[in-house]
Amino acid sequence: MKKISAILLAGIAASFVLPAAAQFAKPEDAIKYRKNALFVMQQNFGRVAGMAAGKIPFDAKVAADSAAVAEFVGKLPWVAFGPGTDTGDTKAKPEIWANKAKFDDIAKKMDAEMVKLSAAAKTGNLDNIKVAANAVGGTSKSCHDDFRAK
Amino acid sequence: MKKISAILLAGIAASFVLPAAAQFAKPEDAIKYRKNALFVMQQNFGRVAGMAAGKIPFDAKVAADSAAVAEFVGKLPWVAFGPGTDTGDTKAKPEIWANKAKFDDIAKKMDAEMVKLSAAAKTGNLDNIKVAANAVGGTSKSCHDDFRAK
Repeated sequence: MKKISAILLAGIAASFVLPAAAQFAKPEDAIKYRKNALFVMQQNFGRVAGMAAGKIPFDAKVAADSAAVAEFVGKLPWVAFGPGTDTGDTKAKPEIWANKAKFDDIAKKMDAEMVKLSAAAKTGNLDNIKVAANAVGGTSKSCHDDFRAK
Repeated sequence: MKKISAILLAGIAASFVLPAAAQFAKPEDAIKYRKNALFVMQQNFGRVAGMAAGKIPFDAKVAADSAAVAEFVGKLPWVAFGPGTDTGDTKAKPEIWANKAKFDDIAKKMDAEMVKLSAAAKTGNLDNIKVAANAVGGTSKSCHDDFRAK
């Protein structure tokens, strides 16, 4: 009995040492948080990618500002994929939680490529931006292919 | 006729020198962007305010991290209140565009108070955080009272 209580207590204690930003009041808040952060990131990344693809006139200042926002905001969604946030108003596949280490790796890769994109955008050189934006786009696609429902 | 054309052209040119992040593809994107950025900000600010109010156990690291995110993300919504974004899925009141200078002032005040909150959170002193969080909360409330529909 004592042993079971100790295990239970350890479990309760563990729930209070979750990573900082993982402290959402409700699973719905976590789901909305990651979706909203991803949208804000996507709007900024999309602007830079549009310039890289020649669909939006290139403006070095706008590209640098947008990439810097995408870099910062792009780091935010991942803590919101905690346990218990796999159901609800979400396209996140169960594969995320079944392969959490793989998901976390791809999230880290995404963050690293965003850092590179932001650095490239600061150079003001469109060719640098193209290379970095393609890398972000590729990682983003592979993450969606594996972990997001259509 | 030439004069009118010149004025028209100046107007068209002006629409291309909008602030960087104001370049949204559709008004709906701008509305979603500001709502999503405000939600991400609010989740982070709410955590700090909850600690300040004694509703959430105080954790200096979590408070500092959350305030830093709230400071950065809190700057993002304002460019998305551009012309033509007053209708649609939004609680933004027409008063925003009728009193744009007043709205912009309160947004600037909000940003400045978020900087102070983030600095306070970095000190790790809960009393400093309380003062700064109350200031943010007060400005936020006055903005909602004037500019957000119930």
